[in-house]
Amino acid sequence: MEAITNIAICGGTHGNELTGVYLAKKHGWLLANPAAAAVCRRYVDCDLNRCFSLLNLNGKNTGLENLRAREINALLGEKGTMNAPDLILDLHNTTANMGVTLILSDEDPVLLGISAIIATEFSGVHIYLQPESRDESPYLGTIARKDICIEAGPQAHGTLNAELFLKVERIVFRFLELIKGDLPKVNCEIETFKETQNVDYPRDKEGNITAMIHPNLQGKDFCELKAGMPVFMGFDGKEIFWEGETCYPAFINEAAYYEKGIAMSLTHRNLLHLPGSIVFN
Amino acid sequence: MEAITNIAICGGTHGNELTGVYLAKKHGWLLANPAAAAVCRRYVDCDLNRCFSLLNLNGKNTGLENLRAREINALLGEKGTMNAPDLILDLHNTTANMGVTLILSDEDPVLLGISAIIATEFSGVHIYLQPESRDESPYLGTIARKDICIEAGPQAHGTLNAELFLKVERIVFRFLELIKGDLPKVNCEIETFKETQNVDYPRDKEGNITAMIHPNLQGKDFCELKAGMPVFMGFDGKEIFWEGETCYPAFINEAAYYEKGIAMSLTHRNLLHLPGSIVFN
Repeated sequence: MEAITNIAICGGTHGNELTGVYLAKKHGWLLANPAAAAVCRRYVDCDLNRCFSLLNLNGKNTGLENLRAREINALLGEKGTMNAPDLILDLHNTTANMGVTLILSDEDPVLLGISAIIATEFSGVHIYLQPESRDESPYLGTIARKDICIEAGPQAHGTLNAELFLKVERIVFRFLELIKGDLPKVNCEIETFKETQNVDYPRDKEGNITAMIHPNLQGKDFCELKAGMPVFMGFDGKEIFWEGETCYPAFINEAAYYEKGIAMSLTHRNLLHLPGSIVFN
Repeated sequence: MEAITNIAICGGTHGNELTGVYLAKKHGWLLANPAAAAVCRRYVDCDLNRCFSLLNLNGKNTGLENLRAREINALLGEKGTMNAPDLILDLHNTTANMGVTLILSDEDPVLLGISAIIATEFSGVHIYLQPESRDESPYLGTIARKDICIEAGPQAHGTLNAELFLKVERIVFRFLELIKGDLPKVNCEIETFKETQNVDYPRDKEGNITAMIHPNLQGKDFCELKAGMPVFMGFDGKEIFWEGETCYPAFINEAAYYEKGIAMSLTHRNLLHLPGSIVFN
């Protein structure tokens, strides 16, 4: 297995996601957006976690987060160069009921194997595949050759949840342990959820939302959504039913995504067979 | 019973508490802080719901919310004058597990009686007494001669919860129905929670919090807290136990109160006997 030695752990890429903010402070990990953390907001000028495409890093956009993105890129080694870190773990929170979700930007067999071990050792862990063009991806983690975004929820932004805090901390340290080579053999099927598309809220002509997540769907992240099941409820109480293909939604009712036009992300559920040889060749 | 005819209903006093924001938009009620709602933040310059003391209204403080407070005061009639509204209902959300909590600023027998009826008709409704010097109180509702703040939770700020939205809406309309005189006789004991003090998080010398709400206390609003029960958990996992008198905490882990130095508010639980004659004399 290719050595992974240069590892960066980041928290507070969003300043109101306090699990990462306080874990970064506790362990001296990189507090990615201290200015936003100081005012307990997601960002000051723009979303830092949308600033890391190569185009943007090499561009001239200003504003606090664009400048900070270039600073972090220089600090960690520089995306796309030999000096880039081997791995970034970036810690996030969500208001959605996603438990601890490990988001992989590709199907890297090493990270898949390690994630599978984590998922068997800890309850409520999901593996989420979000295929990315690495150069174009705007996420902080893509500075590194490999990355995992760790989403923990449900947690209201601006709050801490002691159970999630301690669980994410234990998962990060178990990750480091596994990365450093103390690798049990795995030969198992693992459940993965691959993102296919985002779904917006119903909106009027002015762009205002006209419906909420349906009570039957609220909190049902990673559960099956089939045609005919209720998905939204209008402010008038009218129900809207799902007409698409069967899928497994996540990021349901994430606070920060109202402004991005995302009511939920849809995924396909897959069972991957992971023999030890794929993971540890 | 004294006539209550001039009633104002307000939502969005905090711009990221979306139940009130969207109910106000739906029904044409007063959207108290449209500038904060537009950016989905609690406030722009300072907390609007701390701007309504007579001293502040008659002062010269600037900033968006202080100016808006004077504008709302003029619009609704003016606090402390004959033109003040009879009643304000102000709609809020909390990240704490408080269900629908009716906050009364005094033990007005009419509002207590009506609140008691609401609490028998709807599940998960609490009556919370927060004694206030009306002139000095900074809350928007105190513009009026009587007021009720309706807190609904748990709901992450910046999100909507369809069940809470529809429940608060039904409660407001039932309130108006009862106020307008369609009053069933009540002769019952009602449970009330009277605020006694606020409790801050443990902090270091620089003012940084050093502990989180203990998992055993999280979500246990309005439950009994006795000496010896765990109340906080340090970032190192160390437990801190309650040493005070038996009480019933609320606003546990409210996101907006981290900056105010409030981890929870303590209350005493009381049973009040409400004969029909007190309510409807």
